[in-house]
Amino acid sequence: MSADADLRAWLEARRTDIDGALERFLPSAPACPPRVGEAMRYSLFAGGKRLRPVLALASAEAAAAARGAAADSARALAMPVACALELIHTYSLVHDDLPAMDDDTLRRGRPTNHVVFGEGMAILAGDALLTEAFALIAREPQRGDDVADETVAVRKLRTLQIVADAAGPCGMVGGQAIDLEAAGTGRSVDGEGLRAMHARKTGALIRASALAGAVMAGADEAQLHAIQCYGDELGLAFQIVDDILDVEGASQDLGKTAGKDAAANKPTYPALYGLDASRAMAAACVERALEALRAKRLAGQLPAIAQWVIARTS
Amino acid sequence: MSADADLRAWLEARRTDIDGALERFLPSAPACPPRVGEAMRYSLFAGGKRLRPVLALASAEAAAAARGAAADSARALAMPVACALELIHTYSLVHDDLPAMDDDTLRRGRPTNHVVFGEGMAILAGDALLTEAFALIAREPQRGDDVADETVAVRKLRTLQIVADAAGPCGMVGGQAIDLEAAGTGRSVDGEGLRAMHARKTGALIRASALAGAVMAGADEAQLHAIQCYGDELGLAFQIVDDILDVEGASQDLGKTAGKDAAANKPTYPALYGLDASRAMAAACVERALEALRAKRLAGQLPAIAQWVIARTS
Repeated sequence: MSADADLRAWLEARRTDIDGALERFLPSAPACPPRVGEAMRYSLFAGGKRLRPVLALASAEAAAAARGAAADSARALAMPVACALELIHTYSLVHDDLPAMDDDTLRRGRPTNHVVFGEGMAILAGDALLTEAFALIAREPQRGDDVADETVAVRKLRTLQIVADAAGPCGMVGGQAIDLEAAGTGRSVDGEGLRAMHARKTGALIRASALAGAVMAGADEAQLHAIQCYGDELGLAFQIVDDILDVEGASQDLGKTAGKDAAANKPTYPALYGLDASRAMAAACVERALEALRAKRLAGQLPAIAQWVIARTS
Repeated sequence: MSADADLRAWLEARRTDIDGALERFLPSAPACPPRVGEAMRYSLFAGGKRLRPVLALASAEAAAAARGAAADSARALAMPVACALELIHTYSLVHDDLPAMDDDTLRRGRPTNHVVFGEGMAILAGDALLTEAFALIAREPQRGDDVADETVAVRKLRTLQIVADAAGPCGMVGGQAIDLEAAGTGRSVDGEGLRAMHARKTGALIRASALAGAVMAGADEAQLHAIQCYGDELGLAFQIVDDILDVEGASQDLGKTAGKDAAANKPTYPALYGLDASRAMAAACVERALEALRAKRLAGQLPAIAQWVIARTS
């Protein structure tokens, strides 16, 4: 099998695992009132790429493989945080689409959460997804196949902190706040400012996804450092490609409104550097991401995922 | 000193501790973008009662005292989660006040968060407060005076789960969702329904506050069970008194718009049972709360706090 076909088969298997785990981990009625549960599921099962959970599982596998441990035990340890990351990503989209924020009515080809459930319920569904993410990391897994319970507890706590720091005001929410303020004031943003905003807004959670899987699988500090570099470069590449797709892509492929950034006069990589230079920047990020992995002999699906991130069309 | 004067002195000392700890624990610029940090602090330092953190500290002291341990070590263990509970309570107020929810412009005598910072930033400030709460419990305390590090880790994880479950869709957010739906459909709510909604909306976090402090201080299962009963009764008493104050209180004392529930045709205890029966119900709750404590010889400030909750005028 080519690397590409291999990745595709692996991704399909992992996405099935992730969707099954999300279903299993999510609270349901009567403990969870039906309407808010419905609103949570509506956005969670809307055909996302599952990039963040996939990254967490791939880095767990890579960390395990580097010391000859089994991939499936490593994935089992990382699956709860993988799902938690998707809950957090989904909450951020739901809140981001609200009229008071980006005011988007289309997402992944369907009406946004607040269009279907109303603004109040969409706010609550986002709050619920975020809170449930932390409940999930604290609760699961209760133990690992070949890891002491105290070790699992310590890894969960560290993971929780990585994820919460990445999602909070010094990470993703902070990035959204900077973005919101810039849109309000119409101040122009330079390349440095754009990069700093995206490092928070999308980069922090992508980096945390790669790190969290590795922490749960017991990676050592040198491996974590390499995976952090990989995650940083991948996060930036992802955002540059997102900006390129917003210029080039058809709304149909993206499942969201294309050309929106330009229309909203938002700073983007193509606007600042042009399309060709932007493409070259994304490719250079991926090269550095791969180099960080090679230096610590980490592999598995991580290199192929980096290639996929820049080759994607949606 | 009378019990009342003793409580007042204790509360004053604890509130000073809590405000200092909140200041210390909150992220600041440049890691946290200034505007979102400002919006978080605006609602956090708006003169709240600090009931939830105070409860956490009181139950930590009570659990420690029951086995002859020192109050200050117990409080040090419980302080981070105490602060986290105030962050969560504050986030819930910020989101609850939004136009798409209760649409309130006055809170604790000041314009609500979205009136000052705009709706988008208020949503983000709430998201940030919630996320930071979990980051804080995962991070602090790093160790206890006389407790092994692994023990602290296990207690933090259990506390995290209690708090996240209480705040999430099966707890507080679920209660808000039920409330929002009821307001939208105009369906009438009976006594059972009202109690069930409030058990989630305010009860769950009050119960979690009492439990979290006791868990961090190392309470045993029998003590936790008693504190859970205490927390449940206290939560219900608190809500009944809140409803009574909404009928009786002046807006000035409350720092929020009085008579709002009746105007919005919201179900309340006085509306369903009358004022006298509501007062008797609150007093009966407190009686049962005190009984639960006595059965396990738990005391400290917990009994006085229960009395204060029904005697308060704001």
